[in-house]
Amino acid sequence: MKIYENKNLNEMKKIVSTYTKQTSDPEIERAVDDILKDVRVSQDDALRKYSEKFDGVKINDFRVPKEALNKAYDSIDDKLKNAMELAKKNIVSFHKLEIEKGFIDLGTKGIMRGQKVTPLESVGLYVPGGRAAYPSTILMSALPAKIAGVKKVVMVTPPQKDGISTAVLAAAKLAGVDEVYQIGGAQAIAALAFGTQSIPKVDKIIGPGNIFVAVAKKKVFGTVAIDMVAGPSEIGILADDSANARQIAADLLSQAEHDPRARAMLITDSKKLAEGVSKEVEIQLRTLPKEKIARQSIEDRGFIAVMDDKEEMFDLMNEVAPEHLEVNLENPTQYLPLIKNAGSVFLGKYASEPLGDYVAGPNHVLPTGGTARFSSPLGVYDFVKRTSFVQFSKDALAADVEAITTLAREEGLEAHARAVESRFGKEDF
Amino acid sequence: MKIYENKNLNEMKKIVSTYTKQTSDPEIERAVDDILKDVRVSQDDALRKYSEKFDGVKINDFRVPKEALNKAYDSIDDKLKNAMELAKKNIVSFHKLEIEKGFIDLGTKGIMRGQKVTPLESVGLYVPGGRAAYPSTILMSALPAKIAGVKKVVMVTPPQKDGISTAVLAAAKLAGVDEVYQIGGAQAIAALAFGTQSIPKVDKIIGPGNIFVAVAKKKVFGTVAIDMVAGPSEIGILADDSANARQIAADLLSQAEHDPRARAMLITDSKKLAEGVSKEVEIQLRTLPKEKIARQSIEDRGFIAVMDDKEEMFDLMNEVAPEHLEVNLENPTQYLPLIKNAGSVFLGKYASEPLGDYVAGPNHVLPTGGTARFSSPLGVYDFVKRTSFVQFSKDALAADVEAITTLAREEGLEAHARAVESRFGKEDF
Repeated sequence: MKIYENKNLNEMKKIVSTYTKQTSDPEIERAVDDILKDVRVSQDDALRKYSEKFDGVKINDFRVPKEALNKAYDSIDDKLKNAMELAKKNIVSFHKLEIEKGFIDLGTKGIMRGQKVTPLESVGLYVPGGRAAYPSTILMSALPAKIAGVKKVVMVTPPQKDGISTAVLAAAKLAGVDEVYQIGGAQAIAALAFGTQSIPKVDKIIGPGNIFVAVAKKKVFGTVAIDMVAGPSEIGILADDSANARQIAADLLSQAEHDPRARAMLITDSKKLAEGVSKEVEIQLRTLPKEKIARQSIEDRGFIAVMDDKEEMFDLMNEVAPEHLEVNLENPTQYLPLIKNAGSVFLGKYASEPLGDYVAGPNHVLPTGGTARFSSPLGVYDFVKRTSFVQFSKDALAADVEAITTLAREEGLEAHARAVESRFGKEDF
Repeated sequence: MKIYENKNLNEMKKIVSTYTKQTSDPEIERAVDDILKDVRVSQDDALRKYSEKFDGVKINDFRVPKEALNKAYDSIDDKLKNAMELAKKNIVSFHKLEIEKGFIDLGTKGIMRGQKVTPLESVGLYVPGGRAAYPSTILMSALPAKIAGVKKVVMVTPPQKDGISTAVLAAAKLAGVDEVYQIGGAQAIAALAFGTQSIPKVDKIIGPGNIFVAVAKKKVFGTVAIDMVAGPSEIGILADDSANARQIAADLLSQAEHDPRARAMLITDSKKLAEGVSKEVEIQLRTLPKEKIARQSIEDRGFIAVMDDKEEMFDLMNEVAPEHLEVNLENPTQYLPLIKNAGSVFLGKYASEPLGDYVAGPNHVLPTGGTARFSSPLGVYDFVKRTSFVQFSKDALAADVEAITTLAREEGLEAHARAVESRFGKEDF
């Protein structure tokens, strides 16, 4: 694993910022435009056409019947069922703390001001096909929506020749998904954005997918809400001499195995740890089932940076803004104030990142590619919207008429001024 | 004004949903792509080129000096100053109620879970040029960012041959804007997204603009955060026999005067009111300085719908999801639970919409074009992000090892399982 030493903070900041995002490809853009237009016009017919073309599956009925979900859940073994139930319990208890309630301000006589919080009516969840269809992600996505009060959570997933995986259907059942449809790709995003005969239009589309899905989501943004477009997984680890090289290496590889473009990073003030981790990564890689993927990730994008002190370590890590951040330092909670940009933080030796992927409770759908600078984990707050309200008495409005009409006329908006004046018979029209 | 009568709810829902959004224009898309690329590469040089080309202004120094802001504020007359100060006071007191604090959960021995809320580091505010540069919008945009704790609020606005308006600079000063740059159009969005020699890269770009600005914002989404792309203004009014036709008409026109594509709508159960408002709109239009704009808005997009009862009125209005909603009914607060989709609600006879544009306190930057189905008013919550965190003791992790490794192996992620096992020397590698 690449080790950077004797670089100052600014040099290191430049190096970490060379991480480039997926750029747009005009051919994919055009292909997605065509699919969106086609689904908008031909609806189910277009969905059937693209399913046959891209997935090699002829579909009569897009809807996966409720009974199939129940049957899947009943058929999974107890060990998996218990694990999924534990995950659900902890996800629910954590996400209930995210519920927002709105407020009312009655501080001034004659004036009521406030904000109400209303759940979205419907949400669409995209679940990729094949091995990337993670049951855990279904729990992480659908449960917060249901906690927010979303009435209709619709799941779409590409049709599979031998049917949709039992674990996926079981997770959908456990998470309270209301409707499941077998449709994937840009055509699934189009269906959720515009609606077809079979598939309902939703208010918001979430969930990761391939480049076609990502481009389609960006294009329907505005017609519906979308979540952030997900990039490859990342883990940033802050550790010093007190850390165990074997454990740090194992945690780095847990993200590297996701994707050749995943990014595993260690920032430390210990040269000894840097060297130990680098060796351990190589040792552990050799026996990993996904060695090829993990090795490419480590070689192309992984690095270890040796910095002068803890302050520099945190400063550099804030520049990275990693999806997952492990603080493998003694008394780790003391460093929470130094963390500015990160999706989810794992404090101390026992908070190994995969704990958060499955059962700790906080969401594992997290900002990637530096977007933790301005984005949050998926949460209950993503499935509600706010509406503000005011009520004024005649006297309260009267006290503000001069200010309102002054500002309105300053902005050249005479009808605004007159509307308020009309309440007092003062209007000059 | 067009009156629909004797239509049932479903027919009316179809009619209101014909409102079409601005569609994309491949020529504008290409032009914006070129500008983005150019600014990314040539930075300030590109900004100078486009300012001369589009705004007809040669710029040496993009930065508007701090002293110019102070001077502008000192030079505005007392009436305007007092109005702006009142607006600021009420905006601040309302938005402080939106501050979010994060949480910590210590309910289980050995487990700490929580979420922390961190302000964005920097925000860019786009302010359109000429008459559309509303000082009130600068207050509504910059104050919530400062309340959230954003350190650097940067304002950009197109260069003007005779300098940027005094009221705009005064509002920037009053709102606590940290830096002002004279640069507009797609080139300003590019500068804020990528940074140039003169203009800093920001974490989020907000504010309305023309079609080039809107397209550019959508294209840089992901590199930075953006707010919803704003469409033309809308007002929806719910009123019955108890309402005053003259006042309702004045409120409809207050939005119609913004834009020929603005949308003014009355939904009522009173045919008498419908006819009275229609007549009043015509009378009031004749003396309006912006008669031409308002008339086109009313003729092309305005309507009055006469429905059977209050329930139908609210049902239809939720389908519209208006930016501004007036509830001009008796005891209006009783209807709050029926309101699902609206940006900002004005309750009762004295809450005329322009009250909310200026001094009531709730934000006037609101979702348009039906996006109130899934979007909120601009608020303090738009200028923070959340980071979740967990800490587990050895025993707490031990209790979850089986669940974690079961789920990891079900998903084919062996390195995930091993990372957790490495904490107990159980790892098989």
